[in-house]
Amino acid sequence: MSVSTPSSSPDRIVATYRVETRYPLEQAAAAMAGEQSSGTFRPVPGETPELIARFGARVERITELGEVEAPSLPGTRAPKGREDIRPVRAEVTLSWNLENTGTDLPTVWSTVLGNLFELHHFSGLKLLSLDLPSAFAEAYPGPAFGVAGTRDVTGVKGRPVIGTIVKPSVGLSPDETAELADRLILAGLDFIKDDELMGDPPHSPFAERLDAVMTVIDRHAQRSGRKVMFAANISGDLDRMRRNLDLVNRRGACAMIVMNAVGLSAAVEIRRHAEVPIHGHRAGWGMFDRSPDLGLSYRAYQKFWRLVGVDHLHVNGIRNKFCESDESVVASARECLTPMFAPPAPPCTVMPVFSSGQSAGQAEDTYKRLGSDDLIFCCGGGILAHPDGAAAGVRSLHEAWEAAKAGVPASDYARTRPALAHALESFG
Amino acid sequence: MSVSTPSSSPDRIVATYRVETRYPLEQAAAAMAGEQSSGTFRPVPGETPELIARFGARVERITELGEVEAPSLPGTRAPKGREDIRPVRAEVTLSWNLENTGTDLPTVWSTVLGNLFELHHFSGLKLLSLDLPSAFAEAYPGPAFGVAGTRDVTGVKGRPVIGTIVKPSVGLSPDETAELADRLILAGLDFIKDDELMGDPPHSPFAERLDAVMTVIDRHAQRSGRKVMFAANISGDLDRMRRNLDLVNRRGACAMIVMNAVGLSAAVEIRRHAEVPIHGHRAGWGMFDRSPDLGLSYRAYQKFWRLVGVDHLHVNGIRNKFCESDESVVASARECLTPMFAPPAPPCTVMPVFSSGQSAGQAEDTYKRLGSDDLIFCCGGGILAHPDGAAAGVRSLHEAWEAAKAGVPASDYARTRPALAHALESFG
Repeated sequence: MSVSTPSSSPDRIVATYRVETRYPLEQAAAAMAGEQSSGTFRPVPGETPELIARFGARVERITELGEVEAPSLPGTRAPKGREDIRPVRAEVTLSWNLENTGTDLPTVWSTVLGNLFELHHFSGLKLLSLDLPSAFAEAYPGPAFGVAGTRDVTGVKGRPVIGTIVKPSVGLSPDETAELADRLILAGLDFIKDDELMGDPPHSPFAERLDAVMTVIDRHAQRSGRKVMFAANISGDLDRMRRNLDLVNRRGACAMIVMNAVGLSAAVEIRRHAEVPIHGHRAGWGMFDRSPDLGLSYRAYQKFWRLVGVDHLHVNGIRNKFCESDESVVASARECLTPMFAPPAPPCTVMPVFSSGQSAGQAEDTYKRLGSDDLIFCCGGGILAHPDGAAAGVRSLHEAWEAAKAGVPASDYARTRPALAHALESFG
Repeated sequence: MSVSTPSSSPDRIVATYRVETRYPLEQAAAAMAGEQSSGTFRPVPGETPELIARFGARVERITELGEVEAPSLPGTRAPKGREDIRPVRAEVTLSWNLENTGTDLPTVWSTVLGNLFELHHFSGLKLLSLDLPSAFAEAYPGPAFGVAGTRDVTGVKGRPVIGTIVKPSVGLSPDETAELADRLILAGLDFIKDDELMGDPPHSPFAERLDAVMTVIDRHAQRSGRKVMFAANISGDLDRMRRNLDLVNRRGACAMIVMNAVGLSAAVEIRRHAEVPIHGHRAGWGMFDRSPDLGLSYRAYQKFWRLVGVDHLHVNGIRNKFCESDESVVASARECLTPMFAPPAPPCTVMPVFSSGQSAGQAEDTYKRLGSDDLIFCCGGGILAHPDGAAAGVRSLHEAWEAAKAGVPASDYARTRPALAHALESFG
C-alpha cells in the first residue's frame, strides 16, 4: 500500500493517517478534524464560522483502501443500521493552521496524535506521515553533528562507523566496563555504547563509569591519534541528565538518551546544553509501531527527534533478531538520510544506527538496499564471538564493507581474507 | 480475566505481562527476562553465573490462559515444527533487583517496557501491572496536593470538584477565553481547564491568557471569597514550560501538563519547581491501551506519574464519548485512589478527572460504581448546553451528586428540582 506525500505547505501542518471505520468516511474524517481542533461533541457558542475557517483542521484528502473482515481493534461503535457492515480502511490527510500550535513540538504531538486514538469511530488509526512547515527548522536547532559531524569526530570516512554495545547490559562495574572497552578499542572499533538498560545505578554510577571508560579511550587516543566515541547513557530525571551531560561534554564523549523514556521536552533541553553528538535510542518503539492498526510510523516519529536535534537514530538492522522486516528497516534508515525541509532550511539528516544481530554477513545487503554507508553499524556477537577473536571480528566488518562498496560479493572477497571468511561461516 | 498482584518486595521491581506466543512458555519468558537484563542473543564472556544471579531478571510466575485462533500481531516467529500450532496466551511475572536501575523512573521505564515489544517470540505483549519497592517513595516526591490539597485549594468538600474545559479548544483570544471564564464562574464552577490542544500559540500567548483569566478569577474571588482553580496548559519545550510555570506559581493557578507529549524527565523537573497542583492530561493514551495485545495498562501507567508528583489524572468518564468501557474507567479511577505503598511510605493517591460527555445523568452511576466523590467532574455540554443556562447546568450537577450521595435515584430527586429534571431530560 503506497503512502502519498502531501506537498509541504508554508503555513500548515499536514498529517496522513490510515484509519478503519464503519462510519461513512467523510463523517469519520470530520470527527478526527473536529476532535483535534476547534470542534466538540456538541456545538458551543464561541464556535463561529470565522473561527472554524481559521482554526479548524481541514480534511485534505480521503482515499478508500477497501473493506476488512471485522474491526481490528475493540471498542469501536457504528452508526445505526451500519452495525453489521464491514469496516472500511482509508487514508485520511488532515491539515492544521500553524496558528493552532505555533512551532512547539509537544503541542504538535498533542494535535496530530493526542485523543484521536480513543475516538469510537475507529477500529484502527495510525499516523503514517507528518509534514511540518519550515518555520519549525527556525524554531528548533536540529542535529548539531548529524552524518558529517559524526564522521569528523570519529575520523571515519568511506565506510560505516563500526560500533558495539557494552554487554552484559547490566551488572558490570565501571572498571569491568572499562576493561571491556579496552579490549574493544584494541580490536579496532570506532564506537562503543551503553545498553539502554544501563543508566546511573548503584553498581555502576554514571560518573565513575564515564571516567573509567574515557580514561581508557584517552590513553588509546594518545597512542593512536584516534579517539573512539563512547555513547554514555545519560537518560534519567532531568537534573541527573544535566549533571551527567556536563560530564560527557567535559570528556568529549557522546550523550545517549532513551527518547521514549525521557520524552520530548527534556530532550530539547539536553540539546540546548550538549556540546557533543546525541545518540537517540528508541527503546519502547515496538509499542508505537508493532500493530499495523495503531500508533505511528517511524516516518512520522523520527521527524520529532530530528528537529529536537538528535544526531543518531536507531533503526534495527537487516535480518535483525527482532520482529521488524528488512523493508521496514531500510525505509526507516532512508528517512533518516532524507532532508526534512527544502533548502535553504537545514535538512536535519541524521545517522541511522543499525543493530540487533548484525555481523559481516549483513554488510552486502545493507549497502545494496540503502545505497549509502552513512550509518553506524553496531555488532555484538558479530565482533566478540568471531572465532579468531574480536580484532578479526572488526576486520571482517571492514572487509565486508569494502566488498559491498566495490560491488564484489562478500563470498568472493572472502577467498583471500580469512577474517571475513570465518565471519561468514560463523554468522551466515 | 483476573490479574493477580504480586506482593511487593522490599528490593525488587515486579512487573506482570499478558503475552501471546507460539514458543514454549518457559522459553518465551526467559527471552523477556534475558533481553531486559543481563542476557544477549549470544552468551558473552562477562555473563558469569554470579552476575546472572544478581542482575538477571527473574521469572516469578507463568500462568497459562489458553489458546487463541491466530497471532494477534504480525512479525512473530515460531520455533521449528511449531509454525502451525496456535499461539498461547499467558500471564508472566518478572522481577528485577533494584540494583539494576536504582530509583530512576526513566531507567525503570526502559527496563519494564523498552525493547520487549519487538521480541519476535511474541504476537502480543502488554504490561498489566507494576509494583515498585518503597525506595521509590523516598526518591520521588509524589503529589504535593493530591485529593486533600485539591479540596483545600478549591474549598470544595463533600462533593466532586465541578469543572469544565475551555471550548472551542483553539481559536479563542486571551480576552475571549477570559470572557468565557467569567460566564463559567458566574454559573458556579469550581474548576476550569485549557484544552490539551491549547498551549502557547501566537493567537493566545500563554502569559496573556493566564493573566486575562486570572484577573477575572481574582475579581470574583474578592467578591465571593472563593478562588476558582484554572488549570493552564504549560506543556511545551522545557524552558517555555519553566517560564510558564513561574507565571502559574505567581498567580496561584494550576499547572496542566500533557504527560505523553512532554515526557517523564521534564515532568519530574516541573514537579520540583511547582508550588501549585499539577493537572496530568493523558492525551495520546489510546495509543498505549487501545489494543488488548500491546502497550501497557492504566494500572501500570499511572504509577509513573503519581510518583513523579502529578495531583490530578484523567480517566475518561462513565458512558463517555470515546471508546473506553465503563469498567475500565472505574478501574482506572479506583487505581488513582488506591495507595501505591504501605505505610509509613506516602500513598501517592491522586484525584481522578472524569470527562468526555459528562452531565448530571452520570453522577448516580459514577458514585455507585466508584464509591467515592473524590474526583474532578468535568462537563462541557452538560453545563453550557443546559436548557436553562449554564448556572442551571452547574446546579443540576450539585443536585445530581447530592442525590447520588443520599442514595436517592436522580429521577426522584429531580421531582422538586427543575435544574436536575431538565438536565436529565436533555442529556439522558
